[in-house]
Amino acid sequence: MKRYAFLLSTALLAGLPARHTATTQSTPAAEAAKVARYVNPLIGTGRIEGALRGCNYPGATVPFGMVQLSPDTREAPNWDCTSGYAYEDDHIYGFSHTHLSGTGATDLIDILLLPVSQERRRAGIDHQREQASPGYYSIRLTDDDILAELTATTRTGIHRYTYAQGRPKGVYLDLDHSALKGDWDRRIVKAQLRIVDAYTVEGFRLITGWAPLRKVCFSIRFSHPIVAYSGWNDGRAFGSAESTAHSPQSPDKRSGKAACSDFTANGRDIKVTFTFGEPPTRPSGEGRDEPIEARVGISAVSIGNARLNREREADGKSFDRLHQEAETRWEETLSGIQAQFDTPEERTVFYTALYHALQQPSVFCDVNGQYARADYETGSIRQGNRLFSNQDWDREFYTMFSIWDTYRAAHALYDLLQPRRASDMVNSMIDHAEHYGYLPIWELWGEDNYCMIGNHAVSIVVEAIVKGVPGIDEHRAWKAIRQTLTTPHSNSPWPLWERLGYMPENLQSQSVSITLEDSYDAWCAARLAERLGLTDEMEHFDRQSHNYRNLYNRETGLFQPKDDKGEWLPGFDALRYGANGGSAYTEGNAWQWRWSVQHDVDGLITLSGGQKYFLDQLDHFFTCHDTSGEKNDNASGFIGLYAHGNEPSHHVAFLYTLAGQPWKTDQLVGHIRRTMYNREPSGYIGNDDCGEMSAWYVFAALGLYPVNPASGDYVLCAPGVTQATLPLPDGKTFRIETKRQGKHPAYVKKIRWNGQILTRPVLSHQQITEGGTLLFELTSTPSGPLVAI
Amino acid sequence: MKRYAFLLSTALLAGLPARHTATTQSTPAAEAAKVARYVNPLIGTGRIEGALRGCNYPGATVPFGMVQLSPDTREAPNWDCTSGYAYEDDHIYGFSHTHLSGTGATDLIDILLLPVSQERRRAGIDHQREQASPGYYSIRLTDDDILAELTATTRTGIHRYTYAQGRPKGVYLDLDHSALKGDWDRRIVKAQLRIVDAYTVEGFRLITGWAPLRKVCFSIRFSHPIVAYSGWNDGRAFGSAESTAHSPQSPDKRSGKAACSDFTANGRDIKVTFTFGEPPTRPSGEGRDEPIEARVGISAVSIGNARLNREREADGKSFDRLHQEAETRWEETLSGIQAQFDTPEERTVFYTALYHALQQPSVFCDVNGQYARADYETGSIRQGNRLFSNQDWDREFYTMFSIWDTYRAAHALYDLLQPRRASDMVNSMIDHAEHYGYLPIWELWGEDNYCMIGNHAVSIVVEAIVKGVPGIDEHRAWKAIRQTLTTPHSNSPWPLWERLGYMPENLQSQSVSITLEDSYDAWCAARLAERLGLTDEMEHFDRQSHNYRNLYNRETGLFQPKDDKGEWLPGFDALRYGANGGSAYTEGNAWQWRWSVQHDVDGLITLSGGQKYFLDQLDHFFTCHDTSGEKNDNASGFIGLYAHGNEPSHHVAFLYTLAGQPWKTDQLVGHIRRTMYNREPSGYIGNDDCGEMSAWYVFAALGLYPVNPASGDYVLCAPGVTQATLPLPDGKTFRIETKRQGKHPAYVKKIRWNGQILTRPVLSHQQITEGGTLLFELTSTPSGPLVAI
Repeated sequence: MKRYAFLLSTALLAGLPARHTATTQSTPAAEAAKVARYVNPLIGTGRIEGALRGCNYPGATVPFGMVQLSPDTREAPNWDCTSGYAYEDDHIYGFSHTHLSGTGATDLIDILLLPVSQERRRAGIDHQREQASPGYYSIRLTDDDILAELTATTRTGIHRYTYAQGRPKGVYLDLDHSALKGDWDRRIVKAQLRIVDAYTVEGFRLITGWAPLRKVCFSIRFSHPIVAYSGWNDGRAFGSAESTAHSPQSPDKRSGKAACSDFTANGRDIKVTFTFGEPPTRPSGEGRDEPIEARVGISAVSIGNARLNREREADGKSFDRLHQEAETRWEETLSGIQAQFDTPEERTVFYTALYHALQQPSVFCDVNGQYARADYETGSIRQGNRLFSNQDWDREFYTMFSIWDTYRAAHALYDLLQPRRASDMVNSMIDHAEHYGYLPIWELWGEDNYCMIGNHAVSIVVEAIVKGVPGIDEHRAWKAIRQTLTTPHSNSPWPLWERLGYMPENLQSQSVSITLEDSYDAWCAARLAERLGLTDEMEHFDRQSHNYRNLYNRETGLFQPKDDKGEWLPGFDALRYGANGGSAYTEGNAWQWRWSVQHDVDGLITLSGGQKYFLDQLDHFFTCHDTSGEKNDNASGFIGLYAHGNEPSHHVAFLYTLAGQPWKTDQLVGHIRRTMYNREPSGYIGNDDCGEMSAWYVFAALGLYPVNPASGDYVLCAPGVTQATLPLPDGKTFRIETKRQGKHPAYVKKIRWNGQILTRPVLSHQQITEGGTLLFELTSTPSGPLVAI
Repeated sequence: MKRYAFLLSTALLAGLPARHTATTQSTPAAEAAKVARYVNPLIGTGRIEGALRGCNYPGATVPFGMVQLSPDTREAPNWDCTSGYAYEDDHIYGFSHTHLSGTGATDLIDILLLPVSQERRRAGIDHQREQASPGYYSIRLTDDDILAELTATTRTGIHRYTYAQGRPKGVYLDLDHSALKGDWDRRIVKAQLRIVDAYTVEGFRLITGWAPLRKVCFSIRFSHPIVAYSGWNDGRAFGSAESTAHSPQSPDKRSGKAACSDFTANGRDIKVTFTFGEPPTRPSGEGRDEPIEARVGISAVSIGNARLNREREADGKSFDRLHQEAETRWEETLSGIQAQFDTPEERTVFYTALYHALQQPSVFCDVNGQYARADYETGSIRQGNRLFSNQDWDREFYTMFSIWDTYRAAHALYDLLQPRRASDMVNSMIDHAEHYGYLPIWELWGEDNYCMIGNHAVSIVVEAIVKGVPGIDEHRAWKAIRQTLTTPHSNSPWPLWERLGYMPENLQSQSVSITLEDSYDAWCAARLAERLGLTDEMEHFDRQSHNYRNLYNRETGLFQPKDDKGEWLPGFDALRYGANGGSAYTEGNAWQWRWSVQHDVDGLITLSGGQKYFLDQLDHFFTCHDTSGEKNDNASGFIGLYAHGNEPSHHVAFLYTLAGQPWKTDQLVGHIRRTMYNREPSGYIGNDDCGEMSAWYVFAALGLYPVNPASGDYVLCAPGVTQATLPLPDGKTFRIETKRQGKHPAYVKKIRWNGQILTRPVLSHQQITEGGTLLFELTSTPSGPLVAI
């Protein structure tokens, strides 16, 4: 089976479009390799007791697609249901074309369609008649007895609505539907609906929100002709019946098309219901109850581009063919890892996690290469853009970078499985910096919303360069990094940082978390400076990388806030949580932030008073159940004070290995894998955060974790897979094998790399990409006392 | 003198750029013809007792320029000072680049610069040391003793700041400065400041307000190098000293430029003060106190286009040369009318009115032809735009259409004096309709703000076609008009109109005013249908043009509101004012709207019960002093109930002539000219409304008024000029001459057109453009009793 998988995934790794490997699909071998069927997109969509939901969406999308076509069970989704879909809900408002997966705040949720047989704004659903798989979603709408099916290409959503026999065929289109208005100052600035002809509806909306200003253009082509429409524009009714009944005859009207062409509505709140007839070419009666299909191209640039996206990607292909193509693309992408497990549950959790991780970042350019640039102009990656002049492959521009989350493990996954896309992502970030002055913090629909802290795009860029991701200009990357770490911006008051060597809480909130994270970013910058021979800059940033030490309080063994005079702030409470401002700690407490020195674990151990004290503190961290500090919503998935539901904890279990007690890492990572992920709608213990929770699982299951991503090294642990194969370019393969004594739980006894015993449980990205076999010899007996969890 | 004027103005009428006629300027003849010196831009900038101010701005601009570079005496201008400048104020906040002239609501006011010698946000001014002339403005800033001078090209503002000897040279730049925030939901969505190099600062701002969303890009080139800067971005300080003091050495810093390059700020509220040094090429000491010049290109499309506008229009030319070029362009434009008067006061009022009328609509395309289209995409009038494919002249795209005001007389003036620009304006409106679905109502920075009522772009388009304005595709024009009058939009609920034959007040506020105005627009549409041989459409719209009759109440002799059942609304008060909603009357009362049937005065007379009753009602209108109805702010300049301060009254004095008592027209028009216009800052009796009050004066002074603009006819009256010459294309000339018995007041005794006595006091646009002499024989004795005003 591995061999077949290899055939499939070489094409994948090379970033080739689907058609290049379509032939492989038809062989029995390819059939045998199918892993996409293990994915369950409903995982992560349900409520969780005492924690934020996964906030995944179950709809149709393709890997890294611009379109995420998914049902919205909420009228105005907010932070508690950011993907728009809550599994426990029993009705939907329709299917909109863009969604965030797993985020803690929400936006997008653009261009909503709902099939109806009478005027209605929402429809009951039956979860028993709901299907979700990669590239496909279907649901039975119970009120009108309509079967709604969805699939997608990169930039086009495809709907197929099968109506009850003899019932009217209508589609409700809502340009106002969005995340909660008012939140993040959200409002529609302007929207436009154009009924171009009986089959074509186009328009756009401009909306402010979490992203400062988004333009979303669309072009819809229906399979059936519109015969009537009625709607509301900012409270004014419009419609085909009233508006043309007494109007002068026009050439269009004479041809019987007046009701469905030449109409434009401009406003802020535009909703319309279309009623469809039969295509005139069809003989009377024949195919009367054929489903209505809608192909909806979207674009952030122009209506013309939305149309072009639809025409090039979806027009002229049947729904079923497009569904199959979407499935094939997922199969190619997911089979970048061919993994085996002891249980079907683990396999489902693993491939769904991989699926969730590979849903974003999203392609943001149109089929012609144009994209909405960070300065609100139209850029092009295909014409004259110096960043993209290296045309070894069809470059894409990407958006949707939840960087504070995804710099930890998700981008390591892209570097490993999708190096060309990873290159495009990094180049997209550099392009952003060139038009925005610095790298993005949280890049949403081409814009920075400045959510969270640090400047970890620096880490992502350096990591990709260190790992040999192709097609990155290191000098441009350096310029972007230097500007990022010297130009003051939100949560980055560099003059203070330069002057004090830490962030002072009286002048910059979240100062401890920011000091720790900025120290890490400085280390990353120093590595690129070193690589470029910029000695002064390297030394400068290496000095900054030690700034974390300036906030370490030896008396408490914790990082604590100081003011700008260098005095510790009074009233310190080690268990008290901060949120996103107003405290020195971001979405956590002093204990959770005590480990955030990913780039200098040895230095952290020394600072802590040596290995023993460090390990004692780790033990305390995982066993302290004092929850007297008010908890932040983002924290969940507790093991003592460890909170797997939020990212700052994600690398902490692996620190045991680096401090000499790897069996505790094995114990904890296995425990987290088994207890904090499952194959139910409640499958994640907290927000998936654009696939970061998922990427953690994928790596943890493979027995690798990028504690310091930009180092290029993985810390190893007892894997969840029984074996796994990652096909590599140039015919190489990275294999993970396990030899086990006894059953779970499993602890690492020995690790062999190409037969040689590893003295240090670390493997580099370079070793992996050179190909080889990583053999874990596992035992059910730990080498020392376990953590008393 | 007439002959010289002709030489100058033929070029003008042909729309040629300045350079083509520059040679004429240097001749003594051209010098003799100078009329621009009669303009006083400070007229209309001051407070008026009991009325809205003229709301003109005194700053530097060129005819129809995109840039209106003018001082702002208000920190956040609002409706009471829409141009940003109030003559009675004694300080300014700086000079911003875009302003509305005479409007009743405000917007624009973008990109503010203030020269300073120390940190300050406003500066005292001395009106005794203030100069304003076409294309030039200067003021002494008293706090720092700085002389600020301004001039402009079409798309670039040019500043020259002369500092006190030995004092620091600074410039404060404020990207947040705007009309009042919150009003019209106004807020900055996003702004960017880029310090490109020591001499160049660029950026943009996105702002919502009266126009839904405007992007204003700028590119500034300073004459002197920036040596330091410090500013605030959303409350965060930034600056050259702090931000780079401890930063790593970079190639830029090594070259000594770090302080003034490579810096970008993104935010909502960005302000910065620059400090300048001396150009390094200058020998020490020499030219130390030379003024600092700033050239500021703007664009609605992109920073690159703002730069291009600046480079092509202003770079490489001295301030004095640019000032002279601006003045020359005004001279060429204003000398389209060579008029003589009895008094210098009348001459100043006339040429200032002409100047105000020719300030807008504004060129909106960049030098490369790109413009921000109505659908928020970038259009181009130079590449492939079918509307502009006729390239007989360098087409421009226009914005700033205060249509409810300017359809009355201002566009008649453009058709007459600037037919190529008039053509471009009409084509801009049609282009707007093609991307917006219908013609604009109030088009501001490329967007419709829907201010006021009616769809009088229909009138402007038809008027231009009727008058033979070149380069308009009548079929495209018809399509735009048909869509406008059938697609429901703000204040245009066509289904109601079609069904009822009037607007019902219970379903559409301002119903009487809208019914009257829509009847007029229908008449205009019918005329184009007729011209195109569309008989059905012509009859349909001709029927609609009579809809005004459906709201005429014979018992009161006034137009009154009905509900949708056809019942008169109870509680009618003939004197009660409406504002802009909540009443059947827009900014007026039933008496002021009683005359708004410009297209069917004969029908209105008949409806009124015949000539006698109609004349009685007119007399009552001009003599009734019952002001028991609460007055609307927009109404001022009263003669009885007549309110010259707002547009609905503007044609009413001319109705006497059409009803057979022309001497009363002469009496009233003379009275209005003499008492409601003067050459002081308080020179207008109400808002100038983008030059409409001014255009009224220009026509009234010439003895012509377009009561029904789209008819192409002017109603004649006793002129204010003693003689006037309008040079026409093809060497023709339109001359106005007067032969007077006695002194003012003057009444028409006879009118001769090319020697023939006119039996009807009407002259058509076609007659005028064929050339000839209009001789008014005037007497000081009226032919009948006067109005007892």
